[in-house]
Amino acid sequence: MKWHGWGEEDKEFGLKKNERLLSFLKGLLDIDLAETEKKRLEDIVLPDITLPGSTLRDLSSICETSTDSYDRLTHSMGKGYKDLLRIRRGEVKYAPDAVVFPGTNEEVIKVLELADMIDVAVVPYGGGTSVVSGLEPGRKNTISLDTRKLDRILDIDKVSMTAHVQAGILGPELERKLNAEGFTLGHFPQSFEFSALGGWIATRGAGQSSTKYGKIEEMVEALTMCCPHGKISTKKVPASATGSDMKQVLIGSEGSFGVITDAVLRLHKSPEKRHYSAFLFRNFKEGTESLRRLVQTGITPAVARLSDAGETRINMRLGSSKGSSLLKNIMNTMVKAYVKHRGYAGDELCMMILGLEGDRDQVEFDLKRSKKLLDGFYLGTSPGRQWYERRFDLPYARDELMDLGVLVETLETSTNWSNLMNLYGKIYTAIGDAIRAYGVKGIVMAHVSHLYSEGASLYYTFAAKAVEGREIEQWHAIKTAATEAIMGNGGALSHHHGIGREHAAWLKQELGHEWVKALKELKKNFDPNEIMNPGNMGL
Amino acid sequence: MKWHGWGEEDKEFGLKKNERLLSFLKGLLDIDLAETEKKRLEDIVLPDITLPGSTLRDLSSICETSTDSYDRLTHSMGKGYKDLLRIRRGEVKYAPDAVVFPGTNEEVIKVLELADMIDVAVVPYGGGTSVVSGLEPGRKNTISLDTRKLDRILDIDKVSMTAHVQAGILGPELERKLNAEGFTLGHFPQSFEFSALGGWIATRGAGQSSTKYGKIEEMVEALTMCCPHGKISTKKVPASATGSDMKQVLIGSEGSFGVITDAVLRLHKSPEKRHYSAFLFRNFKEGTESLRRLVQTGITPAVARLSDAGETRINMRLGSSKGSSLLKNIMNTMVKAYVKHRGYAGDELCMMILGLEGDRDQVEFDLKRSKKLLDGFYLGTSPGRQWYERRFDLPYARDELMDLGVLVETLETSTNWSNLMNLYGKIYTAIGDAIRAYGVKGIVMAHVSHLYSEGASLYYTFAAKAVEGREIEQWHAIKTAATEAIMGNGGALSHHHGIGREHAAWLKQELGHEWVKALKELKKNFDPNEIMNPGNMGL
Repeated sequence: MKWHGWGEEDKEFGLKKNERLLSFLKGLLDIDLAETEKKRLEDIVLPDITLPGSTLRDLSSICETSTDSYDRLTHSMGKGYKDLLRIRRGEVKYAPDAVVFPGTNEEVIKVLELADMIDVAVVPYGGGTSVVSGLEPGRKNTISLDTRKLDRILDIDKVSMTAHVQAGILGPELERKLNAEGFTLGHFPQSFEFSALGGWIATRGAGQSSTKYGKIEEMVEALTMCCPHGKISTKKVPASATGSDMKQVLIGSEGSFGVITDAVLRLHKSPEKRHYSAFLFRNFKEGTESLRRLVQTGITPAVARLSDAGETRINMRLGSSKGSSLLKNIMNTMVKAYVKHRGYAGDELCMMILGLEGDRDQVEFDLKRSKKLLDGFYLGTSPGRQWYERRFDLPYARDELMDLGVLVETLETSTNWSNLMNLYGKIYTAIGDAIRAYGVKGIVMAHVSHLYSEGASLYYTFAAKAVEGREIEQWHAIKTAATEAIMGNGGALSHHHGIGREHAAWLKQELGHEWVKALKELKKNFDPNEIMNPGNMGL
Repeated sequence: MKWHGWGEEDKEFGLKKNERLLSFLKGLLDIDLAETEKKRLEDIVLPDITLPGSTLRDLSSICETSTDSYDRLTHSMGKGYKDLLRIRRGEVKYAPDAVVFPGTNEEVIKVLELADMIDVAVVPYGGGTSVVSGLEPGRKNTISLDTRKLDRILDIDKVSMTAHVQAGILGPELERKLNAEGFTLGHFPQSFEFSALGGWIATRGAGQSSTKYGKIEEMVEALTMCCPHGKISTKKVPASATGSDMKQVLIGSEGSFGVITDAVLRLHKSPEKRHYSAFLFRNFKEGTESLRRLVQTGITPAVARLSDAGETRINMRLGSSKGSSLLKNIMNTMVKAYVKHRGYAGDELCMMILGLEGDRDQVEFDLKRSKKLLDGFYLGTSPGRQWYERRFDLPYARDELMDLGVLVETLETSTNWSNLMNLYGKIYTAIGDAIRAYGVKGIVMAHVSHLYSEGASLYYTFAAKAVEGREIEQWHAIKTAATEAIMGNGGALSHHHGIGREHAAWLKQELGHEWVKALKELKKNFDPNEIMNPGNMGL
């Protein structure tokens, strides 16, 4: 992973090479396409290590421990816009004193016990892809506990279709190993290639295919968490009626109680068939109505992702990895469309990706029914396949936009269907107004995804010309405006990004005073000396 | 509801009129068919009311308050075998001093505030059907808080397919009102006709159709709980990533934190079609393998309920409500079966009920695939319909068996598929041994139901000649033996009956010391003076 951005060092999205798209963005955002400067890695000055040498030696005697600057730097923050902005400028206010790499649960426990004894804060670190500042050392004398060595599949129970997996495994390795046995977990977040199982669980993540396979909290049959004062394991049973659900307390705890070290996961058979296609709708409202009809009829596509008009326009200009633009592909189809279906034209057109997965019979059955239920124009499989191919690539585009001085960020929420259009409009307006308040032009776009019978998630991407010297203030103003719009209109404070430090200020409003008090009691129970990720979630 | 048993006063199962079944049971259980005695209602002496008159007056000023003996008696315990045994004998050690019937959340809060102030214990009471002693006053100065007046549907959101419902509503009323709008909740526990929404949620109940519609904890989108120190509401959003899940802490809390007063429920469309049929399997193992194949292929029948050989034999002797026995119906089919399929005969035969629900296309599709996947003999719809008609009737049979001096009880657990046959055998043997240890004959039978991709529930029914004068000790010995077998072999302490007082002794073993400690902290947070259902779940 690049220290200053997303993904592999030598991979790029190709935005800067797409002349047509660039000039489109130039007009939209009023940017001059000049490259912004990045600090060189070797010029970044990290805060001093405050832990005494004896402690570092004690840690080293437990497991691999690094005080290397590169390790400290890359463990000092996540991958939100604010993070990347600061790290590019070399503004690293806090960095862990050391990064430890335990290889067994016993080593995790020993590290936590030592840290607990001498008041060292511990920030659990999986893939490091938090976009809500969940990984930041909030005080001196902090170590980052990197789970990358806890990356084994301990057992696959083919009969029960479960796998016992260590929490440090990254997405591709997990899927590769499960696929080899005929299974999939079905969890494909945008960060899939670089994020770890433990992080997914700790933040209540959702993958792009959650409509079919569920959010991560539904995929975990049991888990183990190592806390400063002992190890907790939940029982491996499919369901129970044994009081309040401990598992659902540990899931989502974002490192505040302990380190998730391993979990038993519910698997699915690797799909015999994948059918990804696209549909066009006259406008966003008709599209959401169609999606609702689909899911309320009991069809659970792997992916059902409806872009609003703005996102549809941008997506159509993105090239496929093989060069031809989606717009071109679709235009051919659209000629026919125009003839057949009056009304499928204009600025309000919205595209939806529909991904069906399962055995051959099921996919065929679902496709037939979906075509009947969706009040849209079927564009065929080519745009669907194109989306599938590039579904993890968008974060690369962010880096290239930031190179060009563009503020670019995403945020998400969820709500019930009856409130969806209202919430969509309120957030859209709030972001747009907040962008304009800084005297710059911007883009706001969104999609509906992660469907439930009662509602769905709304996912926003926005971009604006960054105001030099005020970038963080500008970003914060937009984020705050969007979050206030969410909170004021019945949206979830987060659907799958988590709380971290970015959303902590709204936690009491979201959950109520009583539950935040209870959360603090729970933290005290598992982590009495408050060494676990202090400050995260406001705990 | 009968004070001394199950259901409506004038309704009976008809066991005592079924000569053939009676003589079969007589042989199996070595009973003499003499009626046992029941104390007359008017002869039962309740413990004195210890609450001062001033408190009763204060309660009356808040809401309807009864100190009537009948109300106190019927609120003194649930509907487990032990409960019915004691109440028939008039052994009522504890009864609430009064029963209050609040009609609004505000009245609930006022009652709790008053109780909290003057140290009166409060036991929330929905339909009163607990079979794990979840309703018993555990100390003096206790009131029962009956939610029957909180029985309204506050709102149905047809777009989002959710309903905001008060917790005191009973099953039939809820379904009737939802059906009228084209919806169903899909929650049909054995106790359906007499149990309340709040009780389902408080105990993490499951209905007979949970394979399709989920357990109650999956049906609740949001809920409100009134606690002695304030009201808590969770946010009405389809899913979120906002830390530990408070909702899943309140669900299953069994009255220990507060009173669940209302909930937003996820609805389903009323099924366009219901197809209930039966299949016959050569033996239990082949049947469970078939069920596993079904659910792991992604088919979710409303009901998939495989009886073991013992339960199959008994079921076949139960008459339909229209008189003809299932055995007779099946025998006709069996003749053909015998010819076509060698091996479908003998003591090991197991019958499965398969209930498919949904729109017409879906049911047809599922039926076709199920027939292909199930390695059993299709018996047609007649036994399926018969099961469906009588699916809430079995508790009536218990009353009639108890009249004849039979100990009869049920218990349940869940486990992963790879452990299912092992656990099945261990519990089966444990119950059988424990019955024989008292020198009597008995029946043990079980079914697999409530399917998950990774496992299923096992539900046991057992009966034995009650040993006069030692009935409770005998019952306790069997229950303990079964629970030890569950705990020693990876089963859930309960899948849907809950903890109550019966399972409390095993809670630490089930959940671990750390979580029980955390539960106690949570209780302190919501109920600092420990007035809520004290002693329940060992809290």
